[in-house]
Amino acid sequence: MGDIIDEVKLFRTWSTPFALRIVWALQLKGVQYQTIYEDLSNKSDALLLYNPIHKKVPVLLHNSKPISESLVILEYIDETWTQQPHLLPQHPYDRAIARFWIKFGENEVLPAVWDAFTKAAGKEQEEAYSRSIEKLELLDEELKGKKLFGGEEIGMVDIALGWLSNLVSVFEEITGLKFIDEHTMPRLSAWKAALNEIPVVKENWPDYDKLLTKFTVLRETYLSKEPQK
Amino acid sequence: MGDIIDEVKLFRTWSTPFALRIVWALQLKGVQYQTIYEDLSNKSDALLLYNPIHKKVPVLLHNSKPISESLVILEYIDETWTQQPHLLPQHPYDRAIARFWIKFGENEVLPAVWDAFTKAAGKEQEEAYSRSIEKLELLDEELKGKKLFGGEEIGMVDIALGWLSNLVSVFEEITGLKFIDEHTMPRLSAWKAALNEIPVVKENWPDYDKLLTKFTVLRETYLSKEPQK
Repeated sequence: MGDIIDEVKLFRTWSTPFALRIVWALQLKGVQYQTIYEDLSNKSDALLLYNPIHKKVPVLLHNSKPISESLVILEYIDETWTQQPHLLPQHPYDRAIARFWIKFGENEVLPAVWDAFTKAAGKEQEEAYSRSIEKLELLDEELKGKKLFGGEEIGMVDIALGWLSNLVSVFEEITGLKFIDEHTMPRLSAWKAALNEIPVVKENWPDYDKLLTKFTVLRETYLSKEPQK
Repeated sequence: MGDIIDEVKLFRTWSTPFALRIVWALQLKGVQYQTIYEDLSNKSDALLLYNPIHKKVPVLLHNSKPISESLVILEYIDETWTQQPHLLPQHPYDRAIARFWIKFGENEVLPAVWDAFTKAAGKEQEEAYSRSIEKLELLDEELKGKKLFGGEEIGMVDIALGWLSNLVSVFEEITGLKFIDEHTMPRLSAWKAALNEIPVVKENWPDYDKLLTKFTVLRETYLSKEPQK
């Protein structure tokens, strides 16, 4: 339960999808909070103090107590501000299934898509791309009969997978690869559109062109580090 | 809450530390369950049905409903059988800290130690070993003033990190590397001893010599696949 007077601060950057998860969750719960934008090339003393292990954003500071790791913060938000909407379902079995897909997204989908994005065109990229398509198809399958992973309402799985709904378009534009195709993945494609219609999601996306620039540069940096073939 | 008549089955192998987590949790909670031993070289139809995504153990089957991913199962057990001992602390902040360390163990410590274990002696192994020592030292630090990560009683962090308390000895014996040194990591070393004194832990370790044989063979398989230098 949040106290009557809560002091909530979110350390984030303008672009990271991990921090957006927290923005969405706090706004869905109606929690007032203060935003602190970090420059990761010049991290603040506060960030280093509050997340000494990973030195990364997001960090949530609640009444002076720091929490890091976006998926851990999401569980914390749901357990602290217990009002609707619930981010996880109420029944333990449904919660387990949600946590399963969150883990799948984080440990399987994200690395595969990232790998495809950061490889130069060629065999390695093709392999990473195939892997990412296999994983994404499983998400498409899981959406059978559902609008969102949470059902009719946005839930923690939707929030955790939210990066798919705009970053993937950026990756597609930069690489020319199609990750979420409306013909082969109609459900995931519809989910992406539905998620983008939800106000907290729609209103908080970083500027698309800025993301495009950022990730173009980032990909070039990766490619320049690849061993010469 | 578990039903009055629960049917609980655990799919496991004799050796995997991921399934041991579930054994410990069920036994701590006093949950009666049936064990099904899988042969991973010849997976049962049941395993493929219940864990179609990963096709791995452990799988918990509770009243015919399957749950996979050991860390997801641990949360499920704690939420379903709500009697003492609680595996996670009760306060959301303490729960977040516990989940942080569980994630750290899984995403940072485990891959680093595994990497050091599966590399041939040489520069790559040295680097992986240094990385694992850095991570393990952070665990040692976190134990300051505590007997176990859960305090006086075993909790979910202890269960999740439990593989450190016997597998690491196997890895040490095989590689000659010292991962948990009683002089440089006195707290983690004491934790390891304390965990091994807890009946559900002590009574369920697989046979040490069998583990030694298994992991010796496994390491050789890894080394034989390494690119020639």
